[in-house]
Amino acid sequence: MTTLRKNSKSKPKTSSSRSRSRIGIASASSLRQAPADSGLPITRIALLGFGTVGASVAKVLSTLKLPGIELTHIFNRSVARKRDSEAAKCVPSSVVWTESMDEILASDAQVVVELMGGITPTEGWLRKALSAGKSVVTANKQLIAYRGPSLARLAAQHKAQLVYGAAVAGGVPVIPGMLQGLGGDRITRLSGILNGTCNYILTRMEAGADYATVLADAQQLGYAEADPTADVDGYDARAKLVILTRLGLHADVDPEAVSTQSISGINAVDFTYARELNCTIRQISRSEIDGATVRARVAPMLVPLSSPIAWSHGTLNMVVANGVFGGDTVFSGHGAGGGPTAVAVVSDILAVAQGCKAVQLPTRKRQATGEFHAPHYCRFIVDDKPGIISSFSGALATYGINIDSILQRPGHPKHRLPFVVTVEPCLTSTLNKALATIAKMDFILEPPLCLQMLSLEDKD
Amino acid sequence: MTTLRKNSKSKPKTSSSRSRSRIGIASASSLRQAPADSGLPITRIALLGFGTVGASVAKVLSTLKLPGIELTHIFNRSVARKRDSEAAKCVPSSVVWTESMDEILASDAQVVVELMGGITPTEGWLRKALSAGKSVVTANKQLIAYRGPSLARLAAQHKAQLVYGAAVAGGVPVIPGMLQGLGGDRITRLSGILNGTCNYILTRMEAGADYATVLADAQQLGYAEADPTADVDGYDARAKLVILTRLGLHADVDPEAVSTQSISGINAVDFTYARELNCTIRQISRSEIDGATVRARVAPMLVPLSSPIAWSHGTLNMVVANGVFGGDTVFSGHGAGGGPTAVAVVSDILAVAQGCKAVQLPTRKRQATGEFHAPHYCRFIVDDKPGIISSFSGALATYGINIDSILQRPGHPKHRLPFVVTVEPCLTSTLNKALATIAKMDFILEPPLCLQMLSLEDKD
Repeated sequence: MTTLRKNSKSKPKTSSSRSRSRIGIASASSLRQAPADSGLPITRIALLGFGTVGASVAKVLSTLKLPGIELTHIFNRSVARKRDSEAAKCVPSSVVWTESMDEILASDAQVVVELMGGITPTEGWLRKALSAGKSVVTANKQLIAYRGPSLARLAAQHKAQLVYGAAVAGGVPVIPGMLQGLGGDRITRLSGILNGTCNYILTRMEAGADYATVLADAQQLGYAEADPTADVDGYDARAKLVILTRLGLHADVDPEAVSTQSISGINAVDFTYARELNCTIRQISRSEIDGATVRARVAPMLVPLSSPIAWSHGTLNMVVANGVFGGDTVFSGHGAGGGPTAVAVVSDILAVAQGCKAVQLPTRKRQATGEFHAPHYCRFIVDDKPGIISSFSGALATYGINIDSILQRPGHPKHRLPFVVTVEPCLTSTLNKALATIAKMDFILEPPLCLQMLSLEDKD
Repeated sequence: MTTLRKNSKSKPKTSSSRSRSRIGIASASSLRQAPADSGLPITRIALLGFGTVGASVAKVLSTLKLPGIELTHIFNRSVARKRDSEAAKCVPSSVVWTESMDEILASDAQVVVELMGGITPTEGWLRKALSAGKSVVTANKQLIAYRGPSLARLAAQHKAQLVYGAAVAGGVPVIPGMLQGLGGDRITRLSGILNGTCNYILTRMEAGADYATVLADAQQLGYAEADPTADVDGYDARAKLVILTRLGLHADVDPEAVSTQSISGINAVDFTYARELNCTIRQISRSEIDGATVRARVAPMLVPLSSPIAWSHGTLNMVVANGVFGGDTVFSGHGAGGGPTAVAVVSDILAVAQGCKAVQLPTRKRQATGEFHAPHYCRFIVDDKPGIISSFSGALATYGINIDSILQRPGHPKHRLPFVVTVEPCLTSTLNKALATIAKMDFILEPPLCLQMLSLEDKD
């Protein structure tokens, strides 16, 4: 375990001696003031993680030179490699680089900025930091989705702050906007595009590309992981939706109870049919209050081209909050990447340093269900023969489901015919029962694809 | 001067006796606590103005029953008429209705919510309230545009808060979003649709309606005043732009120095030509930092249909903030009307009641100029004859301006021909010199219309 100052080329001191020396400095520096014009006391920042976002945070801090804010520590595993990297050039020479979390916890830093991700061991470290009265700024969506309320209680006990504006939609200020700007509304519905990778894939497919090709491109561009499951299957967006639901709908739901559907079942032909319905397809994260329960779901859905949700292209993120008094409010921007995420992190650092608390409203534990009463799009691949429509409508009628439209475009081989039925609003679970019956019919070549269709217009 | 409790049908007490009695109540009620689960002390609210927004604020407060917040006073001229109105039904019977500002100032209310508008006498009243240590929540854009910094200093002196989230874009949380969420970026450019009336008029015209007809409709619908000058000539949006420029670009500019251009010169034919250029026309408020100066302007502009700005229809508002690190962030929603404005006001009340200060960054006084280096759209009405294009291009070439495109649609009479020239980026003032030369040519029937063309795409 080594602790290095960037400008120290001599043999590094041991962690404990460095740690003591920093504490020695601390008692003096805690009396130091920011430049006279700011009138602010110095807030010392420890950065946990010097990857893409951590390096961007260091760069933004060094560029903006915000009054009263000083980066003092950077923690990373294999810290020497990080310290000597090109990205470290903007880091002040006074910063202590360390791979000892104990040193961070024992340091004079008042704010710990966590950009490592994951729940273990991060949670334990942040609990120790909060218990020591250090405020925590984090971009860790999984941690906040699963442990947010418990960490917030711990922070309150120790009069520390816990802020996580970067955990949802990166640089898009949906969390501060919702807390400080929509606290005076009763938000009943949230809908958004919370995963830039899926949005990139689906907007490329909208323009004619094939899922596998686009996924490979996204991986090459660094938009998608080698294992893209968390993105394409909706687990990344789900954590963000849980956080937004807690803050916007004041409802605390179990992330595992929020249903997800992968975008990997979407084919090029679905965009063709969506377009015929004046729609496109996006991975939508949505939740709404319905009495004592919360409907919440992350899934590819048909979105009207006239809806703001359809505006989001590429890696953009977007959130639409529907309030009883204020109607629809839209937040949009860059949801990922070093720069935008660093903006959210540094904005949070600034708020903590200035003692600006966020508005708090009581939150209730709520049961979540993935059930929405919605119109649906069902796409089948059939070996065409007479009587198919009759079989479909019979199976749907058994469950009381009305067909809204039937679409069959020319240009496909009869023995492998994509075929679309849209149905009037019904529960997804009811429709799935009818589709289970249909899936067993001998002319069905693939499991049917079933997508909810989104309607987002202000209801007032 | 009368002071009435809503439920008091007996002869009203005099202002001074009521005032004393309220102070008597105050010393007891200041010790009162909100319901045990909130743990918050009670914050007493005095509402100045019970018009559309004031009544909506009372309704939102009575519906949300926010912990720790109590409406105690309502001030209005001719208060009996307001107190007996349908809108007053949601107001608790304990509220003191008064037309005495002295009573408000002497009351135990800790927060004054100002919804009356105007600079005189409002400014004097709010100065007294701040000097008495009362926090001020206001929706008054002109007051904040002209007197914001001075009022903020007064508030700081008396440890009171001055918040005005409702002063810009109504229910759209662009001010809290920008302060709390983009404080960690360096915003260099703001562009937005800040006047719902103009947006309503222009989107109706985009769909084929005529300016005079739409203005009359807007007046009948209550979207436009009998004298629509403040809206259509840009003074309303200018005040909002000045506030956003102060908060986002950290630049304090004189509102009078921000140039404006009326939308009243736009004709139906301009939308036809705009569409040929893949654009539409919107009243755009924009400002950008250029070295030590700020470029700032409110004017109808050509906006690419692909830009988020073109998404805003009807009375919607939108702001796009371009940051060095975070790229473009978009805020959109309902910018006017009782409900959305009340959401912003009540959100501010909540923040003040919970002691949540806004992030503060130093602001500098800056010179403003309406000059932008931009491509321009010039529309002429000519009595057609040979040689016109040659005359135009000669006049433009004299000032070093390059023509980008020439558009002449069929279907117009030759003796009154609308004719469009777009030019490559140049300063508006330079172009205006060339247009002054052209305006004197004998075939020109009307003063030329000159619009800047907006380009908003992220530059990264």
